[in-house]
Amino acid sequence: MTDFRQQALDYHAKPVPGKICIELTKPADSAKDLALAYSPGVAEPVREIAADPDAAYLYTGKGNSVAVISNGTAILGLGDLGPLASKPVMEGKALLFKRFAGLDAVDIQVRHRTTNEFIDTVANIADTFGGINLEDIKAPECFEIEQQLIKRCNVPVFHDDQHGTAIVTAAGMLNALEIQGKQLGQVTIVCMGAGAAAVACMELLVKCGAQRERIYMLDRQGVIHTRRDELPAHKELFANNTDKRTLDDVMSGADVFVGVSGPDVLPAETLALMAPNPVVFACSNPDPEIKPELAHQVRDDLIMATGRSDYPNQVNNVLCFPFIFRGALDVRARVINDEMKIAAVDAIRQISKEPVPDEVLRASDIGSLTFGKQYIIPKPMDPRLCQRVAKAVAQAALDSGASQFEQLPPHYQ
Amino acid sequence: MTDFRQQALDYHAKPVPGKICIELTKPADSAKDLALAYSPGVAEPVREIAADPDAAYLYTGKGNSVAVISNGTAILGLGDLGPLASKPVMEGKALLFKRFAGLDAVDIQVRHRTTNEFIDTVANIADTFGGINLEDIKAPECFEIEQQLIKRCNVPVFHDDQHGTAIVTAAGMLNALEIQGKQLGQVTIVCMGAGAAAVACMELLVKCGAQRERIYMLDRQGVIHTRRDELPAHKELFANNTDKRTLDDVMSGADVFVGVSGPDVLPAETLALMAPNPVVFACSNPDPEIKPELAHQVRDDLIMATGRSDYPNQVNNVLCFPFIFRGALDVRARVINDEMKIAAVDAIRQISKEPVPDEVLRASDIGSLTFGKQYIIPKPMDPRLCQRVAKAVAQAALDSGASQFEQLPPHYQ
Repeated sequence: MTDFRQQALDYHAKPVPGKICIELTKPADSAKDLALAYSPGVAEPVREIAADPDAAYLYTGKGNSVAVISNGTAILGLGDLGPLASKPVMEGKALLFKRFAGLDAVDIQVRHRTTNEFIDTVANIADTFGGINLEDIKAPECFEIEQQLIKRCNVPVFHDDQHGTAIVTAAGMLNALEIQGKQLGQVTIVCMGAGAAAVACMELLVKCGAQRERIYMLDRQGVIHTRRDELPAHKELFANNTDKRTLDDVMSGADVFVGVSGPDVLPAETLALMAPNPVVFACSNPDPEIKPELAHQVRDDLIMATGRSDYPNQVNNVLCFPFIFRGALDVRARVINDEMKIAAVDAIRQISKEPVPDEVLRASDIGSLTFGKQYIIPKPMDPRLCQRVAKAVAQAALDSGASQFEQLPPHYQ
Repeated sequence: MTDFRQQALDYHAKPVPGKICIELTKPADSAKDLALAYSPGVAEPVREIAADPDAAYLYTGKGNSVAVISNGTAILGLGDLGPLASKPVMEGKALLFKRFAGLDAVDIQVRHRTTNEFIDTVANIADTFGGINLEDIKAPECFEIEQQLIKRCNVPVFHDDQHGTAIVTAAGMLNALEIQGKQLGQVTIVCMGAGAAAVACMELLVKCGAQRERIYMLDRQGVIHTRRDELPAHKELFANNTDKRTLDDVMSGADVFVGVSGPDVLPAETLALMAPNPVVFACSNPDPEIKPELAHQVRDDLIMATGRSDYPNQVNNVLCFPFIFRGALDVRARVINDEMKIAAVDAIRQISKEPVPDEVLRASDIGSLTFGKQYIIPKPMDPRLCQRVAKAVAQAALDSGASQFEQLPPHYQ
């Protein structure tokens, strides 16, 4: 681990600090080049944009750009370490946006005294970019922040910790249930954790067909039920009218466990209480709610996913966020709506059911690559993701009215 | 002109919109790469920065980055066209930062309702970057904005329209006066224009030795004098205790004219009133205060500079801003102080007195390249600027206490 720690620090420090840089997309070698790029030529696109704001998509990088913005209040699983400490994560996100979807993402860390000040700051700079990806912002503030920014910004706003996680989880879950021979509308779901990711995952599963009354969400005080006092709004949504109070109570006969909480909170004996052919998503990172080795010892009828790359079925946001923005930006969608999210779920599901390209075969040594218990979601390096997920999202944006475009851009056709 | 207009639009639109993009500085091709760049490896630099904010300079791009920020209230000479319309200019600035100084500049356009809201927004995101370059912000708000941000930010803040212009103007002016055999401390200076650039130019000339009482500044109402009512603070600084009221009054016998106002405001007859061997900087862009052809017809004892690249002696901010930030960032200066600005003036002056490198000879077809009336400032493409101006600025930061470093980084030694 010390060795990996040093490797990670070296990767970030050498040969230059950080992971991303700016490059020119146009020549800037002659006086003529500079006269076009800057004074006096630059006045021409300025005038065009002053006359029509949408001209910014023709003459600037806006339409291919995403701001990756954090206030540092919920960095990875490490907590509130302040905005600047989130910078390596945000630069990492920018690296992934470029590597997987060709998007030019810029990381921005925001100091804030109040939630409103954070919202104002982001709203004030939002026009610079084609989209806003919020990251590592703690609950419950993240809900208010996202809602307000969606209202105030002319470009799509997406809180990846909520919706990126939810989309990949839903894709994997629907595939897992299909393999186990269960219907989402009929399963009992236990969600361990009640933060941003948990709430978003459950909301999206409901939109995909899960029954809200068959979902049991737990926070540190146990099952969230209708007789608990002073629940915050995001927990109220999943307050269950039930007499069950403990994890064991709700896990008895449950079909699905989704963990977005912390390490080792799911005991082997509790796993044993689940219904036959259960699905367990233990997404706490780096240490899952139950170790896969232990889980498989307890029962062999299980489908299991984690957040880790060294086990099969990794729930990894990178399967979603680069492509949902790629699709949204390609049709200049004003928002990322439910239709677009569900289109991403469906596209990700479908990819894992088809034979993988050779390059994925060569790169992967974990688990199976044939649709089944060991392979319910695609691998991050799968090149089909960009084309297929982005196209599905773009088409859904057109169909749902999130875009004013009339058809997909040529490269999708 | 129509043809140039189309060329400028095409340059910005094709083959991709805009002028800059993001690239990776680290490998991101294998699962191992991604484990270092993102989860779980990224947690290591996060922890380091949480423990010591300065670690951001080791593990992220902060130390090589500049934010180019505008509210669009004074775009080029075009006026207040709103933040988004400034984007091509800000991207152009970013292109120049990279091309000339290897800095990774990100453009940000800020919506604002009040000056304070603009200041708050910039202060809230400032920690993301190694420095803040303000651009195209109108007077008088720009003075308050810069002062407040310098107080509130931990990184250098520099309003280029003020200080970049002032530094290059001062360098050229001191060289021109040397050639004309005049002393800055003894000349009478007429400054046509009383905006941000005008005030900054005159302030810096005073710091370089000009006598404030021998400066006559004019706004649209004529000479700014001590008996005028309700002068804003930045004009008050140059209110002259004089009976002179018109441009002709102050130009009679004047040694220096600095124009930062508008096209064709200096009549040939007025130029004729100046003292022998005058210096005329007609910096209005694209159309100067007097056309060089006309000026040289009126008098042959003149040294003239403009803002244009198609005449000799172009006063161009690009001679300064990339390198003042390069030097400041290389020693992590907390501010850009007067000592650093004057060091930049001196370095720019000196470069124009030395033989030019072959590549500048090849690239230049305008005017002379030997120190003299046709060559008082270096050409933008001169590769000596980065090394020499940046080093002088870095050394001045060390000497003046703006940096906590004890010595120059190795590449300057």
